Amino acid sequence: MDRFWGNYPVLLEELRDVKEIIKKNIKSRERYLEDSIYPMIDAGGKMLRPAFLLLASKFGEYDREKMLNIAAVVELLHIATLIHDDIIDDSKLRRGVDTIQAKYGKEYAVYIGDFLFCQCISMLSEYDYDTENLKKMSKVISRICISEISQYHLRYNLNMNLRKYIRVISGKTAALFAISFFAGAKEGKCSEKNQKLLAKIGYNIGMAFQIIDDLLDYKGNTEALGKNALEDIKKGYYTLPLILALNGDKEGRLTKLLSKSSLNSNDIKEIIRQVRIYEGIDKAIKVANRYSKKAMLLIDKLPDCEGKEILSTIVPKLLNREY
Amino acid sequence: MDRFWGNYPVLLEELRDVKEIIKKNIKSRERYLEDSIYPMIDAGGKMLRPAFLLLASKFGEYDREKMLNIAAVVELLHIATLIHDDIIDDSKLRRGVDTIQAKYGKEYAVYIGDFLFCQCISMLSEYDYDTENLKKMSKVISRICISEISQYHLRYNLNMNLRKYIRVISGKTAALFAISFFAGAKEGKCSEKNQKLLAKIGYNIGMAFQIIDDLLDYKGNTEALGKNALEDIKKGYYTLPLILALNGDKEGRLTKLLSKSSLNSNDIKEIIRQVRIYEGIDKAIKVANRYSKKAMLLIDKLPDCEGKEILSTIVPKLLNREY
Repeated sequence: MDRFWGNYPVLLEELRDVKEIIKKNIKSRERYLEDSIYPMIDAGGKMLRPAFLLLASKFGEYDREKMLNIAAVVELLHIATLIHDDIIDDSKLRRGVDTIQAKYGKEYAVYIGDFLFCQCISMLSEYDYDTENLKKMSKVISRICISEISQYHLRYNLNMNLRKYIRVISGKTAALFAISFFAGAKEGKCSEKNQKLLAKIGYNIGMAFQIIDDLLDYKGNTEALGKNALEDIKKGYYTLPLILALNGDKEGRLTKLLSKSSLNSNDIKEIIRQVRIYEGIDKAIKVANRYSKKAMLLIDKLPDCEGKEILSTIVPKLLNREY
Repeated sequence: MDRFWGNYPVLLEELRDVKEIIKKNIKSRERYLEDSIYPMIDAGGKMLRPAFLLLASKFGEYDREKMLNIAAVVELLHIATLIHDDIIDDSKLRRGVDTIQAKYGKEYAVYIGDFLFCQCISMLSEYDYDTENLKKMSKVISRICISEISQYHLRYNLNMNLRKYIRVISGKTAALFAISFFAGAKEGKCSEKNQKLLAKIGYNIGMAFQIIDDLLDYKGNTEALGKNALEDIKKGYYTLPLILALNGDKEGRLTKLLSKSSLNSNDIKEIIRQVRIYEGIDKAIKVANRYSKKAMLLIDKLPDCEGKEILSTIVPKLLNREY
């Protein structure tokens, strides 16, 4: 967070406050609760969603306390979904620290995630937020859940295609980016036009962000090469590079490989090799670029102000990660 | 449900409608979602929480559509917690049908529970409910989560005592009963006095209900004798009969047994035998009776109407289960 937002001291200070608000809201009589969650909050991450919410709100009237609280909600919501995702994926590390499921067990992680979800709702009910925001926010949470279920349901599905993939990632990732921008704009009482524009920017950033995340799993140095992709493929999660490669594989070689009842490490290497042969990675980069460009075009349409400058600088930095 | 509420055809009809509202609200484009949840909803249970909400609301002004919707919320909330509980407890059957975790896996069950929580929030944001209700409802959800975590945290704790047990069950069970009564009364615009009275009735019913539930695990015919208690003890969940027996065990025999690193079936039988010797069951019955009596005393204070009659009949029926 500090490195990513380092050029914007005001925003960085606000994000630090957001962290404190999150911490305050998960305090309870049961001390071990905060003990188990604080390390994950301290480990951080870029805090993209609250940062975008705050930036969007500054296109309108900025009410610091109210905005920081709702910014904390979107980050906490994100953390809750990560904790439950880690259960599903059986992940050991997240942001460089032990995951809650690894350290305390899956059972505990289920309830901790639930608890954080609940705290989000409590926090939303404390301030006098726009009812449209509350409705949209709850719809987004539902969509995240449905998309995660859908992604889980689509495992090992050889008919997985671009359309289905787009639907999953727009629900599980882009929707939360979009609502972060929208909620900021709405609470900031931006014009309706700018609310919509900012929500669209969020959506496109989210889409590009997720595709790039999936892409990076297929890239990297030789050491880490394909490690995550390998895990994903084994678990039956087919992301964009593999999906696009499958489309190009007219001889059905990839399909045949993926249909094997169990995959050994040679199979996986061969799958990753074929994803390259069929240009799955290059094609996925093109799709990501479409969303990135769209986001930048829309940012250009925003009224001139400091927020616009920050977005114009930070979004390319975010979306031009190594690939 | 049909048998329990059979003497009250109006209420029964309303509860059937509540079920339909729940079903409508979990429909989505992903058909398999409803396929996995409907069996649990159809299997039913007594639908105590929505029934109590509706009964409480009738002490004020009854707005059918609005009440049925919020009654659906409390039942759906209950279902969501059951689905996550089944993950933790690794339960195979619930209400006579396969649990979601048994049929579709723990991973799926995590997300399904999340999804249902989210739908509750969506449903609450659709109507113009009293903001106090929304705040209290979200606090109750948080309390349920914290209490479940706390219960999990207290496993194998030989210092488990009445006070800790009461705190856990008041959070995980009684709070939802209390809010069901309160939400009905509040939305029905009952007098403040009656709102409080009804909430207290709910709390006491919930407490008695949970203690009896825990009691029944230690009773039953020889076939089923102690089956659930056995499971609970093995998993380290010490409920009231055992806790009260521990208090009476001055020689520390029970403590010594429970401290063993692994318990075989003879150990468990001996533990259950000692719970009887130290009158754990009888003492727990006395505690349950205190709450039941309190509930009945408070019901007496309600203004005379059909709802009062129903409560006066149904509550003893509910709380005089075999023990």
